[in-house]
Amino acid sequence: MRQEPREIGIGLVGGGYMGKAHAVALSAVGAVFQTALRPRLEVIAASSLASAERYRADFGFARAAADWRALVADPAVEAVVIAAPQATHRAIAEAAFAAGKSVFCEKPLGASISDAEAMVAAAEASGLPNMIGFNYVRTPATQFVRKLLAEGAIGEVTWFRGEHTEDFLADADAPATWRCQGRANGTMGDLAPHMINCALALMGDIAALSAQIETVHPTRPGPEGPVPVDNDDQAQMMVRFSSGASGHLYFSRIATGRKMGYAYEIHGTKGAIRFDQEDQNVVWLYRAEGPEATRGFTKILTGPAHPDYLPFCQGPGHGTGYQDQIIIEARDFLEAIATGTPVWPTFREGLKVARVIETAFASAEEGRWLPVLQE
Amino acid sequence: MRQEPREIGIGLVGGGYMGKAHAVALSAVGAVFQTALRPRLEVIAASSLASAERYRADFGFARAAADWRALVADPAVEAVVIAAPQATHRAIAEAAFAAGKSVFCEKPLGASISDAEAMVAAAEASGLPNMIGFNYVRTPATQFVRKLLAEGAIGEVTWFRGEHTEDFLADADAPATWRCQGRANGTMGDLAPHMINCALALMGDIAALSAQIETVHPTRPGPEGPVPVDNDDQAQMMVRFSSGASGHLYFSRIATGRKMGYAYEIHGTKGAIRFDQEDQNVVWLYRAEGPEATRGFTKILTGPAHPDYLPFCQGPGHGTGYQDQIIIEARDFLEAIATGTPVWPTFREGLKVARVIETAFASAEEGRWLPVLQE
Amino acid sequence: MRQEPREIGIGLVGGGYMGKAHAVALSAVGAVFQTALRPRLEVIAASSLASAERYRADFGFARAAADWRALVADPAVEAVVIAAPQATHRAIAEAAFAAGKSVFCEKPLGASISDAEAMVAAAEASGLPNMIGFNYVRTPATQFVRKLLAEGAIGEVTWFRGEHTEDFLADADAPATWRCQGRANGTMGDLAPHMINCALALMGDIAALSAQIETVHPTRPGPEGPVPVDNDDQAQMMVRFSSGASGHLYFSRIATGRKMGYAYEIHGTKGAIRFDQEDQNVVWLYRAEGPEATRGFTKILTGPAHPDYLPFCQGPGHGTGYQDQIIIEARDFLEAIATGTPVWPTFREGLKVARVIETAFASAEEGRWLPVLQE
Amino acid sequence: MRQEPREIGIGLVGGGYMGKAHAVALSAVGAVFQTALRPRLEVIAASSLASAERYRADFGFARAAADWRALVADPAVEAVVIAAPQATHRAIAEAAFAAGKSVFCEKPLGASISDAEAMVAAAEASGLPNMIGFNYVRTPATQFVRKLLAEGAIGEVTWFRGEHTEDFLADADAPATWRCQGRANGTMGDLAPHMINCALALMGDIAALSAQIETVHPTRPGPEGPVPVDNDDQAQMMVRFSSGASGHLYFSRIATGRKMGYAYEIHGTKGAIRFDQEDQNVVWLYRAEGPEATRGFTKILTGPAHPDYLPFCQGPGHGTGYQDQIIIEARDFLEAIATGTPVWPTFREGLKVARVIETAFASAEEGRWLPVLQE
Repeated sequence: MRQEPREIGIGLVGGGYMGKAHAVALSAVGAVFQTALRPRLEVIAASSLASAERYRADFGFARAAADWRALVADPAVEAVVIAAPQATHRAIAEAAFAAGKSVFCEKPLGASISDAEAMVAAAEASGLPNMIGFNYVRTPATQFVRKLLAEGAIGEVTWFRGEHTEDFLADADAPATWRCQGRANGTMGDLAPHMINCALALMGDIAALSAQIETVHPTRPGPEGPVPVDNDDQAQMMVRFSSGASGHLYFSRIATGRKMGYAYEIHGTKGAIRFDQEDQNVVWLYRAEGPEATRGFTKILTGPAHPDYLPFCQGPGHGTGYQDQIIIEARDFLEAIATGTPVWPTFREGLKVARVIETAFASAEEGRWLPVLQE
Repeated sequence: MRQEPREIGIGLVGGGYMGKAHAVALSAVGAVFQTALRPRLEVIAASSLASAERYRADFGFARAAADWRALVADPAVEAVVIAAPQATHRAIAEAAFAAGKSVFCEKPLGASISDAEAMVAAAEASGLPNMIGFNYVRTPATQFVRKLLAEGAIGEVTWFRGEHTEDFLADADAPATWRCQGRANGTMGDLAPHMINCALALMGDIAALSAQIETVHPTRPGPEGPVPVDNDDQAQMMVRFSSGASGHLYFSRIATGRKMGYAYEIHGTKGAIRFDQEDQNVVWLYRAEGPEATRGFTKILTGPAHPDYLPFCQGPGHGTGYQDQIIIEARDFLEAIATGTPVWPTFREGLKVARVIETAFASAEEGRWLPVLQE
Repeated sequence: MRQEPREIGIGLVGGGYMGKAHAVALSAVGAVFQTALRPRLEVIAASSLASAERYRADFGFARAAADWRALVADPAVEAVVIAAPQATHRAIAEAAFAAGKSVFCEKPLGASISDAEAMVAAAEASGLPNMIGFNYVRTPATQFVRKLLAEGAIGEVTWFRGEHTEDFLADADAPATWRCQGRANGTMGDLAPHMINCALALMGDIAALSAQIETVHPTRPGPEGPVPVDNDDQAQMMVRFSSGASGHLYFSRIATGRKMGYAYEIHGTKGAIRFDQEDQNVVWLYRAEGPEATRGFTKILTGPAHPDYLPFCQGPGHGTGYQDQIIIEARDFLEAIATGTPVWPTFREGLKVARVIETAFASAEEGRWLPVLQE
Repeated sequence: MRQEPREIGIGLVGGGYMGKAHAVALSAVGAVFQTALRPRLEVIAASSLASAERYRADFGFARAAADWRALVADPAVEAVVIAAPQATHRAIAEAAFAAGKSVFCEKPLGASISDAEAMVAAAEASGLPNMIGFNYVRTPATQFVRKLLAEGAIGEVTWFRGEHTEDFLADADAPATWRCQGRANGTMGDLAPHMINCALALMGDIAALSAQIETVHPTRPGPEGPVPVDNDDQAQMMVRFSSGASGHLYFSRIATGRKMGYAYEIHGTKGAIRFDQEDQNVVWLYRAEGPEATRGFTKILTGPAHPDYLPFCQGPGHGTGYQDQIIIEARDFLEAIATGTPVWPTFREGLKVARVIETAFASAEEGRWLPVLQE
């Protein structure tokens, strides 16, 4: 008989959208995966004690904390999940590592490249498990694609096209909000990290790029007249991977009709792959083999034969959803703590993404190709 | 501030596939929906105490029971979830109602129409919340379709085609298993209930039908030679709904390539709808309005504008999965207990399905149309 | 060097929709296929000499005829193409065969089963090439499906579902026209023949069936009030093929949103096939072979590797259209005349279709399964 | 009654793939469109008299010419269609205009930008109808998109992504052919013109671009060892349209799985459009209007409500194919000759395309954005 799972005390900073997603994931992960560690929802912190109290009751935590410092300091908290604003990521993570606690941090790693560098340094110095929340890359579908590529299923890859497109600001008359201020909240800061991470995970490093970054709607209506928008609505870049393959990345928050346009197409010398997160249980695979008359893109429905699918659903076609990605992350984070095995993606992957973004801004400024910053 | 949720002790009978799905749902539902009742995983029972013990540890229940009678009798158990073999449904449900406990029962309602009738009688006599687990009908997509039809969005409905097709026995050489024995395990017993329920939910009662039910592969390989198969591999029926619309239902466990072919097409005088569970976040809607040149089937991605979507995912396109359907069921069951409000679907819906199935077997026997048994 | 093509004088009866399609096909077929016989557009006949004159100028025929008798009698006419109302098919064909001229006849073969029988008798007695215009079955896609089935690519076929659905009378308020009168103009008379032909071509004979045929909208607006509709709006039948496979056929002229819903799904023990004429250059093929993780429906785009594709388009993806089907028919008809080789489908296939239809009307009347009339 | 069509003598230079397509189109166009001018297939020229003789017999021309000069000089030839190698375009066109004959020329306009400039000059000096064969832009679907954009159906356009991708050289071991030599035969020379023309037709002029052009497989197997490839396998460019919109164009002959990947996506402030030539009878349209719950991309099947569809097919869903595009071109060329009305696209559109290509080569060389050459 397998061993009784041990409990681990979790502190969650943030109870907004991602905070809730993690609260649900931590509640469910033990029953889904029979993890060796079963999360005990210990402390939740938020922007105010009142908020934290509300989240505590909503999600079933034992206690609410007035701020993240109290949470990190709480001896019952053994691991910290950060789902708070970007600007706070670094301080929370550094404190947690200093207190000897493992950290899961939502993307992006921090608010700037120096934040990201500092966070990687703190994480690696601590020797503790550290994980970043690039959840989309964790679908059974994209994990299967990663496996296909690693096995050479489509030969040598010659082209990667990725996009992360949504339409929440597509209407030129949508009013100005906090999303319209600050580089971190623009398309490059907010949407690009997921797809850049995906590109790196599937293709390896980006060696050089040429980017265009633009604010399509320079003002938006405010209560007292037009408000200037100081961040980007859409951006694109031509890229050269270190492998030699070329590619293109596109990001937009004004892509009318797109809701979760985390999508990519990959061409290889022996096949091709297509994926779109709006249809997250499907991988399209073309293989240049067998008689010409029966070749075509095969619509593969993820199922028990694909990574991380089985624990959710008995059979193929049942389908995983958004929340399942977060549960997979929770499983890996807990396993890393339990066993000391490496986890993926780590803070270092978050830093790589930050460097691509930094290079893109410089390239867009100069209107030419630039090599991507490396350490 | 909203009230602190109250706890409710749950007893779960069965820890197999559906048992696990309910264990996960009960763990997560409070954080997802902020239900007034938060489940406390009290007792789990299974076919043996050893199994029950294993499930207890896997899913985080407080205690394991040697059999369902002990579970039902346990005073800490306030509500019972039945995810055990069909043949046990009736006895468990009757005992639970007698003990004053609400019951959620997996489909089908029982192993026979007399079981189903007895269970409805016991449920209704008790006055307690009773719910049946037709989970597929609870996707945001199908709930949205139900709403569209109720609103007359496609006019008067003239045609409904539904299917529940899978391919787990498509290979003629697949060995004989328990699935090949007993009416309850055939296509009509195992797959048809979901789609018949869906047809009834969307279209209203079926008045008459003409069915064909067949065992395509009469024997399957066994360890000592061919084993006779005594239940059905595929079945179809032409139907006449009480509304006057016609339709067709098809069920198969040998539909090669189909994994979760719970799918339907509906034609109305002013529009049409298509849905396929393999793509559970999409509804296709055609409306015969506006200029001819811009008409077509619209691929609607479920999102915050659709029923039951929002608590899982902030935005459209994030996507719900199989497990989310079970969480929705748990939410409704708990709300019914908390507030006494009606729940849907009840045991009575399970009985309606059983009557359609019973009529179908009679019709197939006689080779002609028969009216559906009504009470 | 290949031989100079010889000319053949063609007489075309009817210049309406199908008449034009044949006029275009006859003009183009020589350049497309380098047929041994090059059509010379000799005489066209229509319902009046004035109409015939107009068609002559429109399509480039040498002469217009006052009626089909003159056309058939014209010595320069060596082969006759019938694209006139159903009621005239028999008389024209009989006269043409009597005059020793090959005949291509649009579907359905005649206005009744006795017409159809007489036409087959006349055709076969003449020993002359005779062909019926089931054009949809002649796409590269469906011809490829026929080949796949013949080769056993999906194993033993267990299920065939076909439909021919359109929506030209979906609006309950669409005014009464000639389409609302006469069995030949109802769904069974007008739309069903194409898909029944397809089912027979792909699956072999239908042994028995149980049909439902209905007039959904019993009256339609006329200039002086409601006009009764005396033919069918939609129809369905469960079928048993002689091969042992089961199936379902559905026909509708009120299927809102469907424009050319000539579509089928086929399940076999080793694979499955899907096709929809609205996407006429695609065949979906599933094969239960290779690793589970890469199985799925493959979207095959017709191309040079498929039957009859190459002469139209150099490469895959270029796409064939409606007119191309008619050109393929013209090619086969001309080749049959030139070489005496068998053509397909012949009048006899038209008769088989008529017998299925006749049986369906009887079955719907009696509400039970009936064996299909055989000769 | 409409007037009897007048005949016009046509000379066709080239009988290969495009030559045949034009021969078929010229044979069929009169019956399809009832054009005022009915083509008389007068003279065909090819690379040798023997070839020309074979094409003459194949396509039904009256005479074969030993070379294009004889064809142009033939008094019975009133209009010239050029479907010969790029290097010959300029000389043929100049001679034809000099002889007072209208010219239809296959794309690209010539083998170089100076050819293109000279051809526009000759065409415009002559005052005669001149047309270039960008056939893909002439589908009912893309013509409908053009109309939608002109009407502002998707608001202000902010993004255009286009590609022309095929896979005929995707296999790294495909042997070296003439396609691997010469700029005109590379991806930019051979595939890019169609999609650049499309982008210009739908979006207006390109103001500036930044391109990457690459030979992925620098050698290919030859009979005596590896042969160097001197032209490009794939290319991409970021573009800025004069309208202010941004975009991306991608061209590839190594895009495994792509057969006719002439495809685009357009985002506007009020909607979006998608099209893929592999599915040439479909336009996907999203409009940001009406209730959120029923929004989505509508799959519009081209039909009688769309430009240039009706003459081919009576109803929607019947479908147009590759050959129909060439017939539409023939119709417009003949109408321009008959009536003197402007035709589209003219040689000038071909020159615009050539200038974008020229700029792309320069930009790729310099690794930076360049303004597009204007006259």
